[in-house]
Amino acid sequence: MRWCRFRLGQKESYGIVVNGGVEPVDGSPYGSYQRAGKPLAMDEIKLLAPCVPRTMYAAGSNYLDHDIGMAALMGTVSKPPTAPYINYRMPSAVIGPDEPIVIPADASNEIQYEGELVVVIGKQAKHLTAENALDCVLGYTIGNDFTERNWQKSDRTFWRCKNADTFKPLGPWIETDVDVAAMRTIVRINGRVATEFATGNMLFGVSEYLSVLTSYVTVYPGDVLWMGTDLVPENVAPGDVMEIEITGIGVLRNTVTKERARAG
Amino acid sequence: MRWCRFRLGQKESYGIVVNGGVEPVDGSPYGSYQRAGKPLAMDEIKLLAPCVPRTMYAAGSNYLDHDIGMAALMGTVSKPPTAPYINYRMPSAVIGPDEPIVIPADASNEIQYEGELVVVIGKQAKHLTAENALDCVLGYTIGNDFTERNWQKSDRTFWRCKNADTFKPLGPWIETDVDVAAMRTIVRINGRVATEFATGNMLFGVSEYLSVLTSYVTVYPGDVLWMGTDLVPENVAPGDVMEIEITGIGVLRNTVTKERARAG
Repeated sequence: MRWCRFRLGQKESYGIVVNGGVEPVDGSPYGSYQRAGKPLAMDEIKLLAPCVPRTMYAAGSNYLDHDIGMAALMGTVSKPPTAPYINYRMPSAVIGPDEPIVIPADASNEIQYEGELVVVIGKQAKHLTAENALDCVLGYTIGNDFTERNWQKSDRTFWRCKNADTFKPLGPWIETDVDVAAMRTIVRINGRVATEFATGNMLFGVSEYLSVLTSYVTVYPGDVLWMGTDLVPENVAPGDVMEIEITGIGVLRNTVTKERARAG
Repeated sequence: MRWCRFRLGQKESYGIVVNGGVEPVDGSPYGSYQRAGKPLAMDEIKLLAPCVPRTMYAAGSNYLDHDIGMAALMGTVSKPPTAPYINYRMPSAVIGPDEPIVIPADASNEIQYEGELVVVIGKQAKHLTAENALDCVLGYTIGNDFTERNWQKSDRTFWRCKNADTFKPLGPWIETDVDVAAMRTIVRINGRVATEFATGNMLFGVSEYLSVLTSYVTVYPGDVLWMGTDLVPENVAPGDVMEIEITGIGVLRNTVTKERARAG
């Protein structure tokens, strides 16, 4: 089942993606809902980020080849985490599918995508175990952990390099039935495959992350957990169209643009 | 003017604190509102955290004596920031006045308050300058940047040491008219003054922080910016009552408790 969130006129609603269109619902995937109104075509609506996370968690380095490659790129030594390593992002940076990513005027050219599987929480939960952690998961969506690598060297908190406005595209919808072990993550720049990896090739899986996170933190419906990326991404530039496909979910597409320089 | 948020029965509302009571309003301080219903006594209602931040920003080390003292405590070298240094916290950790802080079962005894002035954003804004930054500010409240110092040594992202559930008390209300330069921050443990400092003795002020933050990030109504603390706090223990007073605003009071150890 695929849950989306969309805008039609001034109204924002949840919907179910069926046969390439959307069946609008009253309510939400986090509580009760009922189908409401006639099915809509995708070109009648604007898809939004599929959830509104109050807190947005992220796996630290969670794929071995990414850890090794990024260390080389950043001039540090690869030290893959030995346990789930929890980070978090700023909800202010979230945008939806097909919204432009706007690179700040004073950013460098070291601008990169990171294609990621993103877990969407469906139920309030704390003190989950690796055995029962998936009970709180509604489904999975796709994220682009967009990053300015030059700032990453000095932004210890990642506040700007990974959280500038528009740097966290999320979508296009939430797929409730997936087999993470069988999935592929494929990133295309202007239609060319730039990066492809096995989505499930993580150092620590979703259950392990959720059990560590919820030892100290309550997760709530709509919160998300970004699971990290593999390999070393390429640079992108204004005008580039990025597509992140995760097989079994869909494609998250966003175009890169650049903020105009400001006077003064 | 003092804005609060409160619960009465099942209903959450904003209100204006007048003469030791609360005048409920329909609407919010961020848009239009009108007084609604008769004034309520404080003991009739439950005060909530005075705002619901979507993103919760925090100054990094922002007082000189705190930077020097904490470096000594953590076994590092004091390197005060040379520009506003932006961090962020997890909204999941916010609690309101008089709610218990719950220390996780496996935490150490190195548990400390940090009394902080907290800026509450009133209007959506980006690209503020130091000259116009205060235009987006609704007012100021008080925060306790509660911290497990032992975890702080290993939690590079501060996800647990500063963001475990209940570690971010906020309140009791938002004061719109303050003179930061004249304010004192006073922390009492069980009625004894443990820490006192000049609130305005910051390395970088509110305007400077907001102008740097909004160079890259849009702030929204209800977002908050924690301004940091001075001096080196004391440890607290379960049973302790912490009161953080900032003159001109009020007193944020929370009791420290400890989570029961869990089987397994």
